[in-house]
Amino acid sequence: MTETTFTVEILPDRIKVRARAGEVLADVLVRAGIPLSLYCHQRGICGKCAVRVLGGPLPFPAELEASLLESRGLGPDHRLACLYEVRSDIVVETLAGSRLEKIAVLDTGVPSAAFIDSAVKKLPLVLEKPSLYSPTAVADSLRAYLKSPGLVLPLAALSKLGGTILTPGRPVTAVLYDDREILDIESEDAGREIFGLAVDLGTSTVAAELVDLRTGKVVDRAAAVNAQNSYGADVVSRITFAFENPDNLRRLKNAAVQLINDLVGTMSRRSGVPRHRIYDAVVAGNTAMNHILCGVAVDSLALAPFHAVFSTLPALPASEIGFTLHPQARVYVAPNIKSFVGGDITAGLVATEFAAKSGTEIFIDLGTNGEIVLKKGREFVTTSTAAGPAFEGMNISCGMLAVAGAIHRAEWANGFKFRTVDDLPPEGVCGTGLVDILAAALARGILGRDGRIAGPEKRIRLTDRLALTQQDVRDVQLAVAAVRSGVRLMLREFRLAAADLDRVLVAGAFGSSLDIGNAVALGLLPDVPESKIAFVGNASLAGARLLLLSRPNRRAAESLAAKISHISLATRPDFQDAFVHALEFNRYPGGEK
Amino acid sequence: MTETTFTVEILPDRIKVRARAGEVLADVLVRAGIPLSLYCHQRGICGKCAVRVLGGPLPFPAELEASLLESRGLGPDHRLACLYEVRSDIVVETLAGSRLEKIAVLDTGVPSAAFIDSAVKKLPLVLEKPSLYSPTAVADSLRAYLKSPGLVLPLAALSKLGGTILTPGRPVTAVLYDDREILDIESEDAGREIFGLAVDLGTSTVAAELVDLRTGKVVDRAAAVNAQNSYGADVVSRITFAFENPDNLRRLKNAAVQLINDLVGTMSRRSGVPRHRIYDAVVAGNTAMNHILCGVAVDSLALAPFHAVFSTLPALPASEIGFTLHPQARVYVAPNIKSFVGGDITAGLVATEFAAKSGTEIFIDLGTNGEIVLKKGREFVTTSTAAGPAFEGMNISCGMLAVAGAIHRAEWANGFKFRTVDDLPPEGVCGTGLVDILAAALARGILGRDGRIAGPEKRIRLTDRLALTQQDVRDVQLAVAAVRSGVRLMLREFRLAAADLDRVLVAGAFGSSLDIGNAVALGLLPDVPESKIAFVGNASLAGARLLLLSRPNRRAAESLAAKISHISLATRPDFQDAFVHALEFNRYPGGEK
Repeated sequence: MTETTFTVEILPDRIKVRARAGEVLADVLVRAGIPLSLYCHQRGICGKCAVRVLGGPLPFPAELEASLLESRGLGPDHRLACLYEVRSDIVVETLAGSRLEKIAVLDTGVPSAAFIDSAVKKLPLVLEKPSLYSPTAVADSLRAYLKSPGLVLPLAALSKLGGTILTPGRPVTAVLYDDREILDIESEDAGREIFGLAVDLGTSTVAAELVDLRTGKVVDRAAAVNAQNSYGADVVSRITFAFENPDNLRRLKNAAVQLINDLVGTMSRRSGVPRHRIYDAVVAGNTAMNHILCGVAVDSLALAPFHAVFSTLPALPASEIGFTLHPQARVYVAPNIKSFVGGDITAGLVATEFAAKSGTEIFIDLGTNGEIVLKKGREFVTTSTAAGPAFEGMNISCGMLAVAGAIHRAEWANGFKFRTVDDLPPEGVCGTGLVDILAAALARGILGRDGRIAGPEKRIRLTDRLALTQQDVRDVQLAVAAVRSGVRLMLREFRLAAADLDRVLVAGAFGSSLDIGNAVALGLLPDVPESKIAFVGNASLAGARLLLLSRPNRRAAESLAAKISHISLATRPDFQDAFVHALEFNRYPGGEK
Repeated sequence: MTETTFTVEILPDRIKVRARAGEVLADVLVRAGIPLSLYCHQRGICGKCAVRVLGGPLPFPAELEASLLESRGLGPDHRLACLYEVRSDIVVETLAGSRLEKIAVLDTGVPSAAFIDSAVKKLPLVLEKPSLYSPTAVADSLRAYLKSPGLVLPLAALSKLGGTILTPGRPVTAVLYDDREILDIESEDAGREIFGLAVDLGTSTVAAELVDLRTGKVVDRAAAVNAQNSYGADVVSRITFAFENPDNLRRLKNAAVQLINDLVGTMSRRSGVPRHRIYDAVVAGNTAMNHILCGVAVDSLALAPFHAVFSTLPALPASEIGFTLHPQARVYVAPNIKSFVGGDITAGLVATEFAAKSGTEIFIDLGTNGEIVLKKGREFVTTSTAAGPAFEGMNISCGMLAVAGAIHRAEWANGFKFRTVDDLPPEGVCGTGLVDILAAALARGILGRDGRIAGPEKRIRLTDRLALTQQDVRDVQLAVAAVRSGVRLMLREFRLAAADLDRVLVAGAFGSSLDIGNAVALGLLPDVPESKIAFVGNASLAGARLLLLSRPNRRAAESLAAKISHISLATRPDFQDAFVHALEFNRYPGGEK
C-alpha cells in the first residue's frame, strides 16, 4: 500500500520536499531545514510561523488565526504553518520575520551557531474565548488555551488573572518562562518588548549587558570595579572574610547585588528600558563569586578539599537574589564545573563553542586564578592554579592595575620603550607590561632563563623612578610557573605534547592585550605557532549573553560542566617536579635556545 | 527453564510466600500485603524497614546499615528489608515499628483506610561518607547519597550545606519535602520530630490542629471566630469588600493570616512544640476564603459567571502566605472543585472517603452557603446554593448564633420546652432551635405547610419575651427551599429520587446538632429513613488533617475535584419551579401528610 504524498515547494529557497497527506506544514518546513520560528510550540497562538501560500488551497482561517495574521499585517493568502495541513501539491513562501534569528556574538569575533530561543516569551491571550467563562477555574482555562496542563502559576499572576485585568475585550499578554511557568499577565500597554541582563561577575570587575531578548541585540553595556574589593582583593581573601562570620557573607553578597543593581540603573536610564521590563538574567562568575551572590556559605571552599556547594542551580527568582528587575524575573547562574573552576569558565566554553568543535584544544583563562580546560576528542579535563596577583600588577614593587599611566606594552630599542594606558607618563607596570619587559630582558641577556638578573645591581632599570627587583621577577616566575605546570600536567593527563594542540584559546582581560611571542617565550602560553593562539577577550560575558538568549545553550552548558573531570594539582605526586621545572623561562626570545 | 524460588515465612502473620532468587525482601513483604514502612523509598538510608531474620543467612551488614540498626537498638539478627536479597528459604519477623501506621480520624467517627505518608520526612545524613569530600559539589554528593538526581535545593539549604554544619562526624538531618526538595539541613539537636498544621478556614470560624506527622496524633486544637467578620459577616459581603479596592483584599488576607498565626502561637505555647518545628500545613476553605488567604483577587467571584481563579495550587512556601512556621515550611491548599464549591468540600469528601465507597450518596454541607455533592457510581455532580444566614440565626428577629443562652433544641409538651446552650435562660434562637420550633409548630397546626402562621396574631410565641414573626418563618422557608431545590435538581440530573439514596452525609457545625426527623419534616434534608442520614461534623478539618498526613490523599483529592461536574442552579430553566415547589414544607411531622 503506497501512502499519498504531495510536493511542497518552498520559496525563496527553491527547495522541493514530499509531504504526507495531512502532514502539518510546519513539520514539513522544519524537516526541509528551514529555521522556522515555532515560538509557541505549534500551539497556533503566537502567529510567528506565518507563511504565504502561493499555489494551493486556502482553507478558511479560524478566528484566532485570522486575528494573528492581521496583527502582523499579512494578507489573505497567508496562513500559520503550524495549523496548515498539506492536502495537495503546494508552493509556499517563507517570510523573513517567520524565521529564527541567529545570535550575533559581538566583540569577541567568535560567531555563534545558536538561534535565539530565550527562556522568556510573551504570548497574546485572546480572552474573548468563551472557554474562559465556563465554571472552570481561570487558571485551568489558561492552561487549556496554552495547551500546557502543567503550567505553573505563581500567586502574583493568579491575582492578576482574578483581577480586573481580565475585562473581556481588553487584550492581555502572558509572560511565559521556559514554556512552563507564567511570570506575569500584562495589559497590552506594557508592550511586547522583553529584555534580559547578562552579567560577568568577576573578582576584580563586574561587566553587564542589557540585551533585547527578541533580537539578540545588546542595548547597552556597563562595567565597574567589584565593590567587594574593599573586603579583599582576591578570591581567597574574600572566602576567608566570609568564612569568619555569616554577617561578612551578607556584606559581600550585598556589595555585589548593589553593584549589579547600580549597573542596571545606569543602563536603564541611558537606554530608557525600565527595570521591570527585564525578565531574565544570567550571571557568570567563578565558584566563590556565584556562591557569595546566592548567599551560600563558602566554608567548604575555604578548607581542603575545596569543594563547591552547588554546580547547577535551577533558575532562581531575581527577588531572592536581591536584583530589582521585573518582580517575577528569574536568574540563571552559569553552572560551576568543579572546585574553583566556576560558571565563568563554563560561560567562556559556551562562547567559544569549545565542546562543539573537533580537535585538541586548550582554554586558558588568565587571572589571579588561572583556569585551564583541555579537550581531546570528547574528553575534557580541567584544573585551576593559583597564579597569584602578579599579572594584575599586585605585589610587584612598581606594579599597578592596567589603568591610566600603567606601562602595558614594552620593547627594547636602544633601551626600553614603553606604551602606557592613555599615553600618560609611566607610573608603574601592569601585567602585560611585565611580560614584555621580562621577555626583552631575557632576549638582551639582562635576565637568565633561571630568572637571575645579571650584574651587581640585581635590578632591571625601567625609568629614573621605576625598576624591577629580583623579588619582582621571582613573583612573575611563580605566576608563570603556576599556569605552565598546570598546562603541562593537563597535557600529560591525556598523553599529549604542546605540539598536539590544534588551538589555544586565551580568555580574560589580561589575555587580550598580551604579546603572544613574549608570553610564549616566558612559558606563560604553550609553545605553539602564534597562528594557533586566539585571544577571546571577555568570553565569560559573551557566554552569559549566549546563555541568556538560548535555552539549548543552557542545557549544553550543564551537560558539559558535568562531564569535565577535574585534576587537583596539589594532590599529584608529579606536581612539585613540574612546578620547579616550569620556573625556568621557556626560551630566549628570537629563536636562540 | 524453571526459575529458582525460595520460601519466605513471615511472622507474626504466619504468611508463606515464594520469592525469586535475589529478590529484595522488602518487595516480597509488600507483595505479601505487609504494610512495610518504605520511608526512604528503599534507598537504605532511613532504617525504618528493619526486620528480624530468624532462619536464614545473615550477610555482613554495610557500615551505614549497621549504624541504622544500632540507632534503633536492634540486635545482630536484624537487617533492612530493602537491602536484603533472598538467597535461600528464610523466616523473618516484622517489627511493629517497621509497619506503616493507619491514620486515626478522631471525633468524626469516620475511620480512614489511609496510611501515614506525610510530605515532610527527616532522613539522617551520614556525612563521614568520603563521597562528600570529592571535588564533586556538596549538593551533587547529597543527590547521589539520597539517590535523587533531580533533588531541589533552595538557597537556604545550600547555605547550610556550605556552612560549618557539615563538620565531619557531626550528625545532621535532611528535611525532605515530597521526596524531591530539601527544606532544611538540621543539626542532630534539632530532633527528629515533624509537626504539621491542619486548618479549616471557615467563613465564620477558623479551626486548627497541630498534628504529629510521624504518628498522626493531634497534639492540640484551637479555634476562633474568623477575624474577617469585621469586614463582612458572609462570603458575598467579603468578596464585595475585596472587590472594591486591592487594599481591602490585603486587609482580609492579613486578618486571616494573623488569626491562624495566633492559633499556632496558642497551640505552640500549650504543647511546647516550637513554631519552627511545623514544616507543613494544609488549609481547607471555601473558594473565596482560600483565594483571599493567597492574596488572589476575587473579582471573578464577584461577577457572573462566578468562576474561581484556581482549582489546584502547587504547595506554596508558608512564608509567601505569611504563616510563621519553619522558614521553609510549605502550605497545601485543598483543591477547589468549581465556582463556590471549594477546598473545604473537597476536604470533607476526603474525610468521608466519599469517592472510595460504592453506592449512591449525597454530601450536604449546611451553612450560609449550602454545598451539595451527589455521587452515582463513578459520576459526581455538585452545586452551591445561597441558603442565606437564617441557619446561623441571622436576620431572624430573635435569632442568634449558637452561643450561651441560645435555644438550640425545642419540643412541644404542653407548650414549648427548650434547651439552651450552657443551660442559661433563653436569650434567642439559633439555627437548630429554629428547625425544632418550626417542626413542632407544623405538627401542632400552629403553622401550615405553606408556612402561614395560624391565628390572628401571626406570631409563634416562645417565651414572654421571644416570638417568631411571619417574616422569620419566611426567611427559614427560603433557606430550606434553597437547599431542598438544589438537592432535587441534583437528583434530577442523574434521574434519581430521594429513595434511591444509600446514604446522606451532613457536614458543618450546624448539621451536627440538628434533629434529623425535624429537618426531614421541613424538607431541609432528603426524605429518607433516619438510619441513612449521618452527621459527619467538621469534615473539612478532618479532611485537612488527612491531606496533611497522606500524600496519596492529596493526589486523590485533586483528581476527584477535577472530575466533579458543576451545575449552576440559576442557569437551569427548571430552577424557579423547583424553588417555588420547595417553599412548601415537606410534611407534617409524625407521619400525617
